[in-house]
Amino acid sequence: MRGAESLVHTLVKGGVDHCFANPGTSEMHFVAALDHIPGVRCILGLQENIVTGAADGFFRITEKPAATLLHCGPGLANGLANLHNARRARSGIVNIVGDQATYHRPFDAPLTADTEGWARGVSAWVRTTVKAELVGSDAAVAIQAARTHPGQIATLILPSDSSWNEGGVVGEPLSVPPPVALDPHQIKNAARILGEKKNVLLLLGGKGMHEEGQKLARWIEAATGCRVITETYNGRFQRGRGRLPLERIPYPGAAARAMLKPYGHIVLAGARSPVGFFAYPNQPSFHHAEGTELHVLARPEQNIVQALQALVDELSAPPAAIPDGGPCPELPSGAITPESFAAMIAALLPEQAIIVDESISFGRAYGPATQAAAPHDWLPLTGGAIGCGLPLATGAAVGARAMGQGDRRVISCQADGSGMYTVQALWTQAREKLPITTVIFANHKYGSLLGEYGNVGANAGPTAVNMLDLGNPSIDWVQLATSLGVEAAQARTIDVCADLMRQSFKRQAPFLIELLT
Amino acid sequence: MRGAESLVHTLVKGGVDHCFANPGTSEMHFVAALDHIPGVRCILGLQENIVTGAADGFFRITEKPAATLLHCGPGLANGLANLHNARRARSGIVNIVGDQATYHRPFDAPLTADTEGWARGVSAWVRTTVKAELVGSDAAVAIQAARTHPGQIATLILPSDSSWNEGGVVGEPLSVPPPVALDPHQIKNAARILGEKKNVLLLLGGKGMHEEGQKLARWIEAATGCRVITETYNGRFQRGRGRLPLERIPYPGAAARAMLKPYGHIVLAGARSPVGFFAYPNQPSFHHAEGTELHVLARPEQNIVQALQALVDELSAPPAAIPDGGPCPELPSGAITPESFAAMIAALLPEQAIIVDESISFGRAYGPATQAAAPHDWLPLTGGAIGCGLPLATGAAVGARAMGQGDRRVISCQADGSGMYTVQALWTQAREKLPITTVIFANHKYGSLLGEYGNVGANAGPTAVNMLDLGNPSIDWVQLATSLGVEAAQARTIDVCADLMRQSFKRQAPFLIELLT
Repeated sequence: MRGAESLVHTLVKGGVDHCFANPGTSEMHFVAALDHIPGVRCILGLQENIVTGAADGFFRITEKPAATLLHCGPGLANGLANLHNARRARSGIVNIVGDQATYHRPFDAPLTADTEGWARGVSAWVRTTVKAELVGSDAAVAIQAARTHPGQIATLILPSDSSWNEGGVVGEPLSVPPPVALDPHQIKNAARILGEKKNVLLLLGGKGMHEEGQKLARWIEAATGCRVITETYNGRFQRGRGRLPLERIPYPGAAARAMLKPYGHIVLAGARSPVGFFAYPNQPSFHHAEGTELHVLARPEQNIVQALQALVDELSAPPAAIPDGGPCPELPSGAITPESFAAMIAALLPEQAIIVDESISFGRAYGPATQAAAPHDWLPLTGGAIGCGLPLATGAAVGARAMGQGDRRVISCQADGSGMYTVQALWTQAREKLPITTVIFANHKYGSLLGEYGNVGANAGPTAVNMLDLGNPSIDWVQLATSLGVEAAQARTIDVCADLMRQSFKRQAPFLIELLT
Repeated sequence: MRGAESLVHTLVKGGVDHCFANPGTSEMHFVAALDHIPGVRCILGLQENIVTGAADGFFRITEKPAATLLHCGPGLANGLANLHNARRARSGIVNIVGDQATYHRPFDAPLTADTEGWARGVSAWVRTTVKAELVGSDAAVAIQAARTHPGQIATLILPSDSSWNEGGVVGEPLSVPPPVALDPHQIKNAARILGEKKNVLLLLGGKGMHEEGQKLARWIEAATGCRVITETYNGRFQRGRGRLPLERIPYPGAAARAMLKPYGHIVLAGARSPVGFFAYPNQPSFHHAEGTELHVLARPEQNIVQALQALVDELSAPPAAIPDGGPCPELPSGAITPESFAAMIAALLPEQAIIVDESISFGRAYGPATQAAAPHDWLPLTGGAIGCGLPLATGAAVGARAMGQGDRRVISCQADGSGMYTVQALWTQAREKLPITTVIFANHKYGSLLGEYGNVGANAGPTAVNMLDLGNPSIDWVQLATSLGVEAAQARTIDVCADLMRQSFKRQAPFLIELLT
């Protein structure tokens, strides 16, 4: 058995049954093994950031790691930005990078690079498999690392000779270590603060933002009168009817500080300390008020739902109903604004849809409107590396299909500037006939940056405008999508957009709407 | 003066007058400084691999470093693959990466990453500027490093507070150290081998492949009867009428070994030892025969032309005329083949055109045909990280314009699979109205990989075909280019292609031909 064959068998045994791939010369034996050993579904991306972003989306929906297949250091490098986002989402990925043969590597052939060095910054675990005999056991450890709670990136570097040589041994699945144990002192302390103080905020992160965590948070809120909100970015936020109406900490610093100011105590339930996305002159790095005390209930690596349950028990908090989210917005009409768009999405959203949100400047308004919409998953940009949305939607749709939920509609809300980073994902959506409706907010500029530039206090002259404006030439998104096999149309009003959206929901295929904003 | 302002002044003083950019929030003060301080022309790329590939192309034509402007670790990561190619081309780049404020970085905000770690693998020099007062002097060192012979990547990481704080001091230009001195023993040894032995190959690399190096190599060839060829990949190869007809070592191992087999001695003039691009089972890593002796005349970092001159002197080799390259091929007609395409290019090539070659599987045939074409520069993929061609063409055209040679036509020969990696470059070509004619070889597959897969000895089943075929859906390159503002048309015959090409040469604008092969 070749090393490559032992790898495929180990993946299948370990439950890794999807591989997002962009292979190269050094991976041909692995491709051959994937070809003749059944059990792993392979999906091609035309650039590696599509591959890694899709693997992230797959995990966020399935909570199971997929494999990737990348080609040498530069292929890995192309996928690092979305691995960065996946790391911030705490997604598990078995990140497989083919590389030069062990004995060829010292000769520094042109495509040789520091593959391990580049992998480290995004990976919880990195190993280069030095011979065929070890491929299976190394892969088993990689799967274990990827599955380690709540999910990690494990990079397995596979030199071509480890792949093609005989001597492969299938790796037996390894048991996954349990999450870091809860600290009873932290539970007691959080209960004491919540019981004694009146100005307490419970800040949810990680799986605290899934349905079960929200239910428990509601009991705590009802019993103690604390306020419950969530961190800004999270791998997966379950929202809509029947879920707790929860505000997120806003992205802009001033709004975030205003929201957190009243609270003398913040209990962190899987959330990190509320740090600003960037520093600004004469503004603090953190968004909570000076003097506010932070109390860790559970760290992101711990079992957050279990921590919330322990807190409920400690407080003897009785069950409490989730309050009604109010009426779902009516379908609006007329001009396109962030508000009318949000209301439209809310009105039209199918049950159990998946919203992928890389709307950047256009989308900051639509959290509240969709609270009363049909239940849905919300997958935002977690790490701030733009170009996440289209690949994430691709992987989320594949993930839903893998779970037998192939009818879940994915709605991909995408800023145009960020969308251009990974536009190649549309082709994979077409090839795989994925039920994704992409809405491009075509403002033809880096809208968020124009806002940031304004904060610098300078008027934009021609050079600055030239670096922040995308209007010369205007990108024709309908033509662009069509060229990659995705049907598309333009909308200048909410009415047209709503019509297109409804039509798109009827197809088992992607569709793109260029929203002229 | 803010740190950002001192940076722009230092760049201008140091002769860095072009900046390829994709800025983000943390770079807004730098953008503002570029906006109000004249002297640096800024060119926007829609993804960072466009930016870095263009900076590479700019250097290859101008032999002057441009600056880049990238956003944080993930923005750098997106541009690493073309920095890898630039490093292999030995291009000088002042690679500027904005990043989190020094005091904000420890808090690990979502976009925080190991920027320095990622930079190291491609950079000869890396520094993070820790305060505004040091921006100018650090930038001066970065420029010095980028200009160090033959060209290096110098990465300057610019935290946002170093950029926005007052206290900036303009850095005075630093003198660039001379290339590593030649070794008289190596010159004498090469002369001795060339004088005594009959089976000697002179292998040119680096600037040995420019006009002056070729002239001297010709004298040595005429005086000693050695054979002169070049390494496979090189930043810039001056070719065509009046230049020495030189074969390159072929990419495929068998052909490379066959070419090198007869030679007992190889004199390396700026070339590296002939290592295979990849290892293959039961094939040697190096392409020269066992027992062949390698003799270094000059390393790539040394002054190769000076070394060839010293060798000429040592040999007392008299001037010898460059032999005539033979007649230029006639314009062919009919079906598109690698050979007919090559002949067409040769027949139509304008004087001093720039050919950017990422044609991969389609292009391996056309070296000989273009030998007798008009004099031109040939810029190939150097590091094997695909997705180089379209950005490289963009930067080469900007570079020619910067040298007052804005009428030089760039012909960008591009495989479709690789072209999809960095297709966003077409938009920059349209925006800058660059005289680039792109020819896409639309075979709708990873042709080179299908060849490699064949070598594995397996028949491709559905899974393998699915990972190597791009035909489902077929990408419509005419529509794709048009959507990004580049006029385009299809050609199914050489005649139509030739017509389109001639028409394109008349415009100060990009044009794309989708060649259906």
